[in-house]
Amino acid sequence: MRIDIITVLPEMIEGALHNSILKRAQEKGLVDFGLHNLRDYTLDKHKRIDDYPFGGEAGMVMQIEPIDRAISLLKSQRNYDEVIFTTPDGEQFTQSVANELSMMQNIIILCGHYKGIDYRVREHLITREISIGDFVLTGGELVAAMIADAVVRVIPGAIGDEQSALSDSFQDGLLAPPVYTRPAEYKGWKVPEVLLSGHERKIAEWRHEQSVERTKRLRPDLMC
Amino acid sequence: MRIDIITVLPEMIEGALHNSILKRAQEKGLVDFGLHNLRDYTLDKHKRIDDYPFGGEAGMVMQIEPIDRAISLLKSQRNYDEVIFTTPDGEQFTQSVANELSMMQNIIILCGHYKGIDYRVREHLITREISIGDFVLTGGELVAAMIADAVVRVIPGAIGDEQSALSDSFQDGLLAPPVYTRPAEYKGWKVPEVLLSGHERKIAEWRHEQSVERTKRLRPDLMC
Repeated sequence: MRIDIITVLPEMIEGALHNSILKRAQEKGLVDFGLHNLRDYTLDKHKRIDDYPFGGEAGMVMQIEPIDRAISLLKSQRNYDEVIFTTPDGEQFTQSVANELSMMQNIIILCGHYKGIDYRVREHLITREISIGDFVLTGGELVAAMIADAVVRVIPGAIGDEQSALSDSFQDGLLAPPVYTRPAEYKGWKVPEVLLSGHERKIAEWRHEQSVERTKRLRPDLMC
Repeated sequence: MRIDIITVLPEMIEGALHNSILKRAQEKGLVDFGLHNLRDYTLDKHKRIDDYPFGGEAGMVMQIEPIDRAISLLKSQRNYDEVIFTTPDGEQFTQSVANELSMMQNIIILCGHYKGIDYRVREHLITREISIGDFVLTGGELVAAMIADAVVRVIPGAIGDEQSALSDSFQDGLLAPPVYTRPAEYKGWKVPEVLLSGHERKIAEWRHEQSVERTKRLRPDLMC
């Protein structure tokens, strides 16, 4: 899979794309990242890619031309399944969206910044708008990194133990049960005895009960 | 405001904390970041901070001891309003949570990683659990950076033009209207004429109509 990210601030997410699971997934050949500085695609001699909004609103707006040039160049090199724009009024990103994207060949993620992007980009160049939640960030960079992380994580082979991803929250509609590790007692706080019992069936039952109880209490909406 | 982040992968988010708005907010003295490598707080000679889960599940679990030592040291230096853990089964992060956190003095954000953290950390050391959405990431690092970004962005003075933050999506319960910038025509795609009219009242009306129409169509739940 290939993920191309177009941004005015590549240095904001370079670290995220080149560490931990994402680094190892690249080394294993499971994913390739292209990180593109939008300023490389403007014809403006001062490398400006934004301008004042029409109608006199506050904030700066990213121009269509450099974005069109960046996307067009990428599209001339390969076919893309989606050209994604990260925006708080897009489709809500969830585990099922991550799973879906993980099965694609090539995607572009365009990171918004400043007040927003010229709306014609969204009308004519973008195929899918994704939101990470009901809040506003200074830009889409962290959202793009987060999408990349969630997507790559579920590509088979990306994490060492596939069973681990399958037992995560949301994959089976339930929240994950509590986990504990050594020491069995710390400052008087003890690990539940069943987990120390070595009794596999009882442990599996306890975990399922905990998942169901936690989901009912914290996220009853997941059980509808 | 001070935000301390405890993580096993500080290099994953250093770039995010030291660029753009967050960099400028630090230069202006509006926020201080402390980025703490959890491995500096373990007594283990191999700097390990994780171990196998009790009960034999897949994946590794972060141990309570280094986390307790890191949080205790920070707490001995100042009072914290919240000790936040990022987890997919926590309270949903929204703009109102960001606004609330932005009024605090000191917060700690503990980033989960691997399969999870020893549940006793959550029971005894954490005061607030925050989720960014219904999906699973390799760790809480990007979530912590995102919380920092959303929170710092609304501290007065953090972005150049405060009006810009106030007219964002969600602050008034409506999605933002479309924005456009030069050129007025690109490949035959035109900016709406009203925005070029110079007629302030008509422009304000158009924007409000667009906000209401977009919110009704895309996010009717925001209007309840």
